[in-house]
Amino acid sequence: MSRLSGMLAGSLLALSALPLGAAAESGKSWTIYGGDTANTRFSALTQINRGNVSKLRVAWVAQLGSLEAQESTPLVVDDTLFVTTSAGPRYVYALNAKDGTPKWKYAPEIPGDVQQTTCCGLDNRGVAYAGGKLFLGRLDAHLVALDASTGKELWKTQVVDYHEGAAITSPPILVKNLVITGYAGGEYGVRGAITAYDQDTGKQVWRTHTVPAAGEPAAETWKNDSWKFGGGAAWLVGSYDPQLNLVYYGASNPSPWGASVRGPDTSDYGKFTNLYTASTLALDADTGKIVWHYQTTPYDTWDYDGVNELVLADLDINGQKTPVGLKADRNGFFYVLNRQTGALISAQPFVMVNWAKEIDLKTGRPVEVPERRPRLDVWAKDICPNLFGGKNWEPMAYNPQTGLVYIPTFNLCMDLVGRKEERKKGAFYLAEEFDLDKPGPGGFMSEMVAWDPISQKRVWGSKEELPFMGGALTTGGGLVFHGNIQGWFKALDAKTGEELWKFNAGSGISQGAITYELDGKQYVAVVSGRLKTPPSFLGHTGERIFASSPEGGALFVFELPD
Amino acid sequence: MSRLSGMLAGSLLALSALPLGAAAESGKSWTIYGGDTANTRFSALTQINRGNVSKLRVAWVAQLGSLEAQESTPLVVDDTLFVTTSAGPRYVYALNAKDGTPKWKYAPEIPGDVQQTTCCGLDNRGVAYAGGKLFLGRLDAHLVALDASTGKELWKTQVVDYHEGAAITSPPILVKNLVITGYAGGEYGVRGAITAYDQDTGKQVWRTHTVPAAGEPAAETWKNDSWKFGGGAAWLVGSYDPQLNLVYYGASNPSPWGASVRGPDTSDYGKFTNLYTASTLALDADTGKIVWHYQTTPYDTWDYDGVNELVLADLDINGQKTPVGLKADRNGFFYVLNRQTGALISAQPFVMVNWAKEIDLKTGRPVEVPERRPRLDVWAKDICPNLFGGKNWEPMAYNPQTGLVYIPTFNLCMDLVGRKEERKKGAFYLAEEFDLDKPGPGGFMSEMVAWDPISQKRVWGSKEELPFMGGALTTGGGLVFHGNIQGWFKALDAKTGEELWKFNAGSGISQGAITYELDGKQYVAVVSGRLKTPPSFLGHTGERIFASSPEGGALFVFELPD
Repeated sequence: MSRLSGMLAGSLLALSALPLGAAAESGKSWTIYGGDTANTRFSALTQINRGNVSKLRVAWVAQLGSLEAQESTPLVVDDTLFVTTSAGPRYVYALNAKDGTPKWKYAPEIPGDVQQTTCCGLDNRGVAYAGGKLFLGRLDAHLVALDASTGKELWKTQVVDYHEGAAITSPPILVKNLVITGYAGGEYGVRGAITAYDQDTGKQVWRTHTVPAAGEPAAETWKNDSWKFGGGAAWLVGSYDPQLNLVYYGASNPSPWGASVRGPDTSDYGKFTNLYTASTLALDADTGKIVWHYQTTPYDTWDYDGVNELVLADLDINGQKTPVGLKADRNGFFYVLNRQTGALISAQPFVMVNWAKEIDLKTGRPVEVPERRPRLDVWAKDICPNLFGGKNWEPMAYNPQTGLVYIPTFNLCMDLVGRKEERKKGAFYLAEEFDLDKPGPGGFMSEMVAWDPISQKRVWGSKEELPFMGGALTTGGGLVFHGNIQGWFKALDAKTGEELWKFNAGSGISQGAITYELDGKQYVAVVSGRLKTPPSFLGHTGERIFASSPEGGALFVFELPD
Repeated sequence: MSRLSGMLAGSLLALSALPLGAAAESGKSWTIYGGDTANTRFSALTQINRGNVSKLRVAWVAQLGSLEAQESTPLVVDDTLFVTTSAGPRYVYALNAKDGTPKWKYAPEIPGDVQQTTCCGLDNRGVAYAGGKLFLGRLDAHLVALDASTGKELWKTQVVDYHEGAAITSPPILVKNLVITGYAGGEYGVRGAITAYDQDTGKQVWRTHTVPAAGEPAAETWKNDSWKFGGGAAWLVGSYDPQLNLVYYGASNPSPWGASVRGPDTSDYGKFTNLYTASTLALDADTGKIVWHYQTTPYDTWDYDGVNELVLADLDINGQKTPVGLKADRNGFFYVLNRQTGALISAQPFVMVNWAKEIDLKTGRPVEVPERRPRLDVWAKDICPNLFGGKNWEPMAYNPQTGLVYIPTFNLCMDLVGRKEERKKGAFYLAEEFDLDKPGPGGFMSEMVAWDPISQKRVWGSKEELPFMGGALTTGGGLVFHGNIQGWFKALDAKTGEELWKFNAGSGISQGAITYELDGKQYVAVVSGRLKTPPSFLGHTGERIFASSPEGGALFVFELPD
């Protein structure tokens, strides 16, 4: 905490002014977290490709002045690269995208006690950009707009009181004149919401709770007044379909993890599904109205959080071009949904799954294995996947040229048991005990899985010894880039999974890379800085992770030699 | 302090055992801080040279898990690279010298309150190696021996009580079966000493104080009992001449900076020279006996610390091959001494100097400009150089092929005034006030100066906008490598100073680089991580430095493409 309290109060150093035009020509810059509003993390750039990636080298490095886990996806707008840190003394850096020289930094004062209400480290995953403004959600649950040319704060609004256990760790999504954000807090008993603000003024336009209040539709899915602290936190990123004008967000686990406060202590939970937790929600972008929902894990008690990003694609389903949403859920199933209606098209396990036999295609619900549902004081053993999920927040990527989705997966199992616990404001509220350090079979703990979303089958896999591999980037050069927790950054052949190149960045890599073109040259950029908090839940495996690389904080930018 | 108290208690993780033979073939490894016992920082390797250095690229990076100033000179022994951090949670890393994969780390518990007794940050400059052992001086003023294959602590001894204001920040020098170290503390009123221990047992063999006690020779150079807290801390590195069996160490400023407690409040200080502070000492390696001394700044009151490394060379002086010691002193003069006798051969200013007109070749003493000596409550204005010196600890390099010394210099001036102050154990004891933020003329604040030590003339200079440029490495490839405080690492033509290549490492570079050859391939390695404490004494210039790059912590290793 001393590190936070020692921050410079709101210091902001504009080293040079930069003129920022409209977002650069599509496909050359990287102006949004997921590469596009569909969250595909696909770039059509081909200069760096299978034939020459072995020559890739570091162009420059920006150290970030922070040893918290680095989870930022940088943005590149024209010749400026924006990268965030993890609430250390600086939040946002603007750098020259060609050589890394600093332009400005945004270093607001953040209250030191946010450490008590951030479940999983002092994380930030990046900013959003539109019309000369940057939008940043902060750990103190404030949303700010910055002048992208100077870093000057234009407006600031409190999204929710962080003392409740809320925080913002992911960038908002920008739709028309709106900036839309959720917040974290599913481990603290917050009640989730998604809120839209006016980009120019910061004034609230709409707010939609992810958990209904008493008397509202779906309120009957909650026992008594358990909805009040029901979780469903939308802490990751949204997607947007401009044709349908729908915004898609995932909602987290219900709160607390232990289910008996929210319904019966059994697998026969009946109506107590705890909507809209562990769900994908489609909201009307203008009003926030929930147009459809799809609950992947009804009455969740495994922390099978539903937040993972929905990747939008148009796939040939039974001879019909279909607008789909693709989701590699924490619960281990890969879902293909009709993104207009929310109808389930298919669902298959993309990792080893044993808590459910399958997804019933008629009801859309998992067919549970009752002994793998933990109950009050009754341990459920060897549940796969564990609560980090088949996939966690580390992003997958979809390559329309190969037709494959590249999923950074976990191969871990767990034991869980429910416990009685009272909620205390701003404190962990889990009502469960756990043993998460149960590696799955096969001698690996994570794997980049190339997945065919039409046949719902695995095409290839590239295994990693330790868990928490980095997110994916895929390119027109036929490549998949990703890092691992030891700090190696790799390029794989998108068709075969063959490793074509790797580089040791010296500290674990979690976030996906980006790529951009500037003055005719293609670059690849990724942040490095090992996760700190999640591995600490992993006992012996955690010790191995801590030994495999130190904490770090650096942005690496790669190029081909001239 | 929370960062220190949060350290893992003595954790030591041996990831793999490595067999370490004798030190590798001379000239291919880098087995001692200064490259050799002469501290030349010259490598004869030629694979990377003027013709191809523009193709240099990053081979791998090791992040160091620390944001303290990175001042470590790595060692390479066989296929292992040893690099230290700045007393963060880890002290020593052993890495595979080819790809950076971790072998082991040494992470002892260091008391958190060492922060109160380290004047200038939590620094460490590296380890020493001999016969399968590493020797490390720690901030808590303990000296330890480690098994170089495993990182296991073999013995530990307290050199001095750190609560007095002492610390060890530099590697010891190894001579025969001895490990010889000084300690820091000239800003806390310690009484300096140089001590030798048995390499196998850690038992003390000899100790020589740098300040005589009452009744000892030279005690009359101190007023009253001021010798008791007299400084003369030997906090940097020693040199060694095996033919003469002499160890050379510099001793720091007398303590406190304000002189009147140690002698008269005037430039006519008479006998009160305060030996052996601000001096070079030649000690018999077997006994520690002072064979000769040369005081560069008698009765110092400018913090013209005498610790800068003595570089040993054999130069043609008036047609005679002469064993000399070269010293670019903090006081701004470049001294050429006969290293057998201590006799002055020549001394000329290598930066702008105005506190003394010249060095009198007969007495060896500076001819002072009286109004530039601060006195009690009487300001001396615009003194050049300022107390960071013409050169500070950042090492210079001597290239026998060009005959030039490459000196990282400062171009800063200062105002000083003496004040009355009582010493308190473990607290800053300066007895002066200062304004250090007075850039010298010319629009630059540091410069790599190529210096001919025979003609005592400058050959070329390469200027840097900001102060605190990095130390030098020079090679048989005709190159000089150095970094700057913005984080750029550069290669210059050793003959002309022309910049041939540069790379942005993203955080300030202070220490000199090393080079080594492994499996027929030459590498260059340097640590990056901006100084934190010294710039904070520099007002507006300090603000510019803090804005120019964030704190960092990474080792960069460079290679040519295959």
